[in-house]
Amino acid sequence: MGGETARSHSNMSSSIQAAIIGARGYVGGELLHCLARHPQVGGVIPCSASAAGSPVAEAHPRLAGSELKFAAAVPADAQVDAVFFATPPRVAMAEAGRWLAAGAKVFDCSPDFRLKDLGVWEKWYGEGHASPELAAKSVYGLVEHAREEIAGADLVAVPGCYATAIQLAAVPVARALAAAGQEVSIVADCVSGTSGAGRSAGRDELLLAEAGGNYQAYALAGHRHSAEILQGLAAHAACPGAALRFVPHLLPLPRGMFATLHFIGAAEVDVHAALAAAYKDEALVEVLAAGRSPQLAAVTGTARAQLGAAGSVGLCAIDNLGKGAAGQAVQACNVAFGFSETAGLPC
Amino acid sequence: MGGETARSHSNMSSSIQAAIIGARGYVGGELLHCLARHPQVGGVIPCSASAAGSPVAEAHPRLAGSELKFAAAVPADAQVDAVFFATPPRVAMAEAGRWLAAGAKVFDCSPDFRLKDLGVWEKWYGEGHASPELAAKSVYGLVEHAREEIAGADLVAVPGCYATAIQLAAVPVARALAAAGQEVSIVADCVSGTSGAGRSAGRDELLLAEAGGNYQAYALAGHRHSAEILQGLAAHAACPGAALRFVPHLLPLPRGMFATLHFIGAAEVDVHAALAAAYKDEALVEVLAAGRSPQLAAVTGTARAQLGAAGSVGLCAIDNLGKGAAGQAVQACNVAFGFSETAGLPC
Amino acid sequence: MGGETARSHSNMSSSIQAAIIGARGYVGGELLHCLARHPQVGGVIPCSASAAGSPVAEAHPRLAGSELKFAAAVPADAQVDAVFFATPPRVAMAEAGRWLAAGAKVFDCSPDFRLKDLGVWEKWYGEGHASPELAAKSVYGLVEHAREEIAGADLVAVPGCYATAIQLAAVPVARALAAAGQEVSIVADCVSGTSGAGRSAGRDELLLAEAGGNYQAYALAGHRHSAEILQGLAAHAACPGAALRFVPHLLPLPRGMFATLHFIGAAEVDVHAALAAAYKDEALVEVLAAGRSPQLAAVTGTARAQLGAAGSVGLCAIDNLGKGAAGQAVQACNVAFGFSETAGLPC
Amino acid sequence: MGGETARSHSNMSSSIQAAIIGARGYVGGELLHCLARHPQVGGVIPCSASAAGSPVAEAHPRLAGSELKFAAAVPADAQVDAVFFATPPRVAMAEAGRWLAAGAKVFDCSPDFRLKDLGVWEKWYGEGHASPELAAKSVYGLVEHAREEIAGADLVAVPGCYATAIQLAAVPVARALAAAGQEVSIVADCVSGTSGAGRSAGRDELLLAEAGGNYQAYALAGHRHSAEILQGLAAHAACPGAALRFVPHLLPLPRGMFATLHFIGAAEVDVHAALAAAYKDEALVEVLAAGRSPQLAAVTGTARAQLGAAGSVGLCAIDNLGKGAAGQAVQACNVAFGFSETAGLPC
Repeated sequence: MGGETARSHSNMSSSIQAAIIGARGYVGGELLHCLARHPQVGGVIPCSASAAGSPVAEAHPRLAGSELKFAAAVPADAQVDAVFFATPPRVAMAEAGRWLAAGAKVFDCSPDFRLKDLGVWEKWYGEGHASPELAAKSVYGLVEHAREEIAGADLVAVPGCYATAIQLAAVPVARALAAAGQEVSIVADCVSGTSGAGRSAGRDELLLAEAGGNYQAYALAGHRHSAEILQGLAAHAACPGAALRFVPHLLPLPRGMFATLHFIGAAEVDVHAALAAAYKDEALVEVLAAGRSPQLAAVTGTARAQLGAAGSVGLCAIDNLGKGAAGQAVQACNVAFGFSETAGLPC
Repeated sequence: MGGETARSHSNMSSSIQAAIIGARGYVGGELLHCLARHPQVGGVIPCSASAAGSPVAEAHPRLAGSELKFAAAVPADAQVDAVFFATPPRVAMAEAGRWLAAGAKVFDCSPDFRLKDLGVWEKWYGEGHASPELAAKSVYGLVEHAREEIAGADLVAVPGCYATAIQLAAVPVARALAAAGQEVSIVADCVSGTSGAGRSAGRDELLLAEAGGNYQAYALAGHRHSAEILQGLAAHAACPGAALRFVPHLLPLPRGMFATLHFIGAAEVDVHAALAAAYKDEALVEVLAAGRSPQLAAVTGTARAQLGAAGSVGLCAIDNLGKGAAGQAVQACNVAFGFSETAGLPC
Repeated sequence: MGGETARSHSNMSSSIQAAIIGARGYVGGELLHCLARHPQVGGVIPCSASAAGSPVAEAHPRLAGSELKFAAAVPADAQVDAVFFATPPRVAMAEAGRWLAAGAKVFDCSPDFRLKDLGVWEKWYGEGHASPELAAKSVYGLVEHAREEIAGADLVAVPGCYATAIQLAAVPVARALAAAGQEVSIVADCVSGTSGAGRSAGRDELLLAEAGGNYQAYALAGHRHSAEILQGLAAHAACPGAALRFVPHLLPLPRGMFATLHFIGAAEVDVHAALAAAYKDEALVEVLAAGRSPQLAAVTGTARAQLGAAGSVGLCAIDNLGKGAAGQAVQACNVAFGFSETAGLPC
Repeated sequence: MGGETARSHSNMSSSIQAAIIGARGYVGGELLHCLARHPQVGGVIPCSASAAGSPVAEAHPRLAGSELKFAAAVPADAQVDAVFFATPPRVAMAEAGRWLAAGAKVFDCSPDFRLKDLGVWEKWYGEGHASPELAAKSVYGLVEHAREEIAGADLVAVPGCYATAIQLAAVPVARALAAAGQEVSIVADCVSGTSGAGRSAGRDELLLAEAGGNYQAYALAGHRHSAEILQGLAAHAACPGAALRFVPHLLPLPRGMFATLHFIGAAEVDVHAALAAAYKDEALVEVLAAGRSPQLAAVTGTARAQLGAAGSVGLCAIDNLGKGAAGQAVQACNVAFGFSETAGLPC
């Protein structure tokens, strides 16, 4: 196996072995960036069927200097403690079971285990779910709001990037509104850097030649993340009947995500106070002074979130990969294994 | 006057002479780009106190090849038929009167004459208005909704760029809502390229080194354009009590503007139908098929607007200079002088 | 044929009918942008096998508002006077003959007819040439240096974009050096916006997510355009033994091209004077004062070139599509048909 | 002093106290980014006369979460072991002496101490040098080529960013050429992100609205860094008579630098082999396989350099701040104090 594994700390008693399924994509590359320098991760096996044998540094310029190469799959004799899926829908649901059976913990960055209502899952993803029992036992890994469940979990569904940005800004406010007996009605206009669309070179509109000077809305008929956001608001904010109008836009930047939320009819709730109170002890979430906007540049390349509020507006900036996908997966892994929550994360 | 005037058409009976006050800024440069190739504009005097004597091509790369130089001011003996102000607040209100007295028409791209309620003006711009009588007689130049008033006007207040994008998407829908006896409540999240902030090199956050990878909201305590939008909805859509939540954002692009509007509680009005009907005969406004988003790249560098709608969402893309400021000023000039409405405009 | 043809001027005696083969790519879109507004082009048939039947405005946002749709091919009964190829290598060499036989003029933006030495062609493009006799009779269309040949030509090989930028800066200087009996040795470091790579969504490194913050050299083993540049220097500058070191780089912008040339051992030739003299009467080539650099922003979206010089350095900025490919093809078409040389071109 | 100092490691015996003069600029911000997380730096005092009292996180978004505030100056009673100057010319030459007298080591990112020939200094910087004796004793801190001198130095002149990129690629090759008795003649075309121009909001051409879609050469009459490069080639490569043709260009990106070097008449030297041999044991310099280009994205945000070579071409990518200025200053500090060379550096 040799070259395919980075054992950064040879004799650390608490270290784990990790594998990344789908390591050639953007989420996979970011996972590798985190895990390769994680003090408790003794080795990482980056798997990619399409890139097997080639150096990870060729696929991911930021990993320049790494000696790692992609493996086609996890070798049969490898002991793996944590498996990260950075795959399209329907891969993790087919493979997670055997890793759980082998005693590993699974962190799935795909949408496979995010929804509890499998009818809703089927509506958005087109086919029936292949692992209903695992979907039932999975934990939705919005770390700041589900730390205790994650601590005991074997299977974590890592939230989508939009779902992370919106829920970080919405959950504390929705909870306050629900507590005050008010309706929760949210308008969320969000922007995402183009890496959020994945390494899908087949789509011309993601080419620099086209996206570079462009800006547009998309998913106007509805976005898949809406379902998990509404589920999250019901679970974490105790407001089952929230209304959400969510429009995503394509930002002409490689990375980054910004959510602008309007809480309609929320005059009696102090949005800023709700956010400040919710996150005052969080290492990775910063709430700015009232009236100040988060800045994308403050979080790009990191696993931190920056939030702000003004009147009934809530704002959240994250890196769509650094926090939204890979970063949050590693953060959840840290919680699940009892490591320092920020270990390995770029801050 | 010689070098400072471009007489592109020597003996055209219907041609006019134009002057631009504040021609070194971005709006001024765009005005010059339009007027220099306008078939009915016989000459243009680009004025800039700070750049007097230097070639316009140095200040405005797109005017490469032009022989024009900035004049310090309009020469005393010049015959000018149209004066365009591309100046900070309080310049046009001090100078417009003498041009009107001399028989010229004035097109003011600054905010000086946009508001009829001068108490509101004072609230946003800090001091009392210096020309209440001109403010009273000025026409608000949202061309597609005020063509008849502009045709007879001598003093046109050119709408702000945000005000243009938002009103183009909002007026027809608000009119339909008002006609149906419904309340008008609009959430408008908008983005603007950084040229919208003017050629204000004194602000670090507009430097490429900072804005280049950034995205943020601003004016969270309220934006000046809100006042003219509400005034416009009252005037053009007959809905005096509209509510508007407007958050502008800084887009990491030189040019362009995109407005995403949510019509709250508008379930009974067909947003797309309202837009399609309102603009079906317009040369500079395109309404896309329902469910499709406008693209900034489709309007950048042009005086056109592209609109879209999906459910209760309305969308509008314009070039903040090409349509939002300079382009609309030239369009209004064309209407006021009876020229073809698109003359001189990049389409 | 109806919807597939834009007859912008119905009864203009001198108007021609044009067809674009490969109209869905970036060069094809730029050709359409020019030809659709060309006063002497009565109609354009944009052909694309892959996009047949879909609106050109969907493929090319800048053509928003156009009613045109792609045709699968030129209809059998169509009368076509000018055929533009914007295709990969080996298409034009197979199809040009039948258009020439039918009396049309052909303007080929592909490399098929650029090289006279077919051994060199084969070396770079991998297979033998399919139409040696047409390659022999084609005219290399660097308009500013081959106007007379183009005027009488039926088959014009439109130069590549790098070849255009480099030759515009190099030919006059090389001619002066050759006249002085000196060797011509040129270092050319050039940058190109990513549209220069074509609409090739299959290459990940052209995605905004990757190219957006990147910059790199490429073709380090040699670039295809070197052959036509050396051929051009021999033909237009009478210096058959020129040496060229050419390194292209990928610029993180959608469009634009910039060439920085160092004339080695050229101390006795005045680079600026040579350029200024060569282009003093050209409508589309501007030579700046000595010591000033061209700016990409001055030519983006136009068919103009901006040149500069300082000491033994020559500089050239063009739009890789606007002048380098499509624009120069239309310029050559104008010369070939006797139209105004800038007709239809964005300036 | 309280809030102005970050003591990240309270009782580490080997830790030092640092101060940054000019901490509000881009180099100052990058220094702070490195030093604030440096394991051997117990505290940092970020000084800025203009921003005194305001949080560093406001000036530098990447430092979000830091509690540090700018001090107007280093408090009189502060014990400081290392002083970093990130100031305009002529500040360090006036102030370095008193810090050296107080026993601190000085790392000057300005050009004040880079040149040994003060006549050359005066030619480029306009006035006589104020500290000739310090200029004489300073060490030019191109770490990979001056490690031993830096280890014993108290005053390090940190090389300019262009000088770093060019010398990293040029010194080993020039040394090989000189050893072979050949002349050294180098063409260096380089690009820099706009942060290289400093936080100089007074220059319009650095605004996103102008630089965002632009590209141009500058300093065509000669660039200040040429002098230190020639001095460096003489000192580190033993080739006193090198010829350099260096043209810098402005890249439309916030950060990053790329140098393309042509070694003229170097046919008998293996450029790639020279680079590979020179840097085979370096932690922060990677030499790619022959024929492959460095990528800016591989080094952005880091203190690493990536080099490549093909034939007689040498290529170098660095982050103009991360390696070129601040990173190299911290690297030199690490050498001077005997810390791990990469401590505190983003890799």
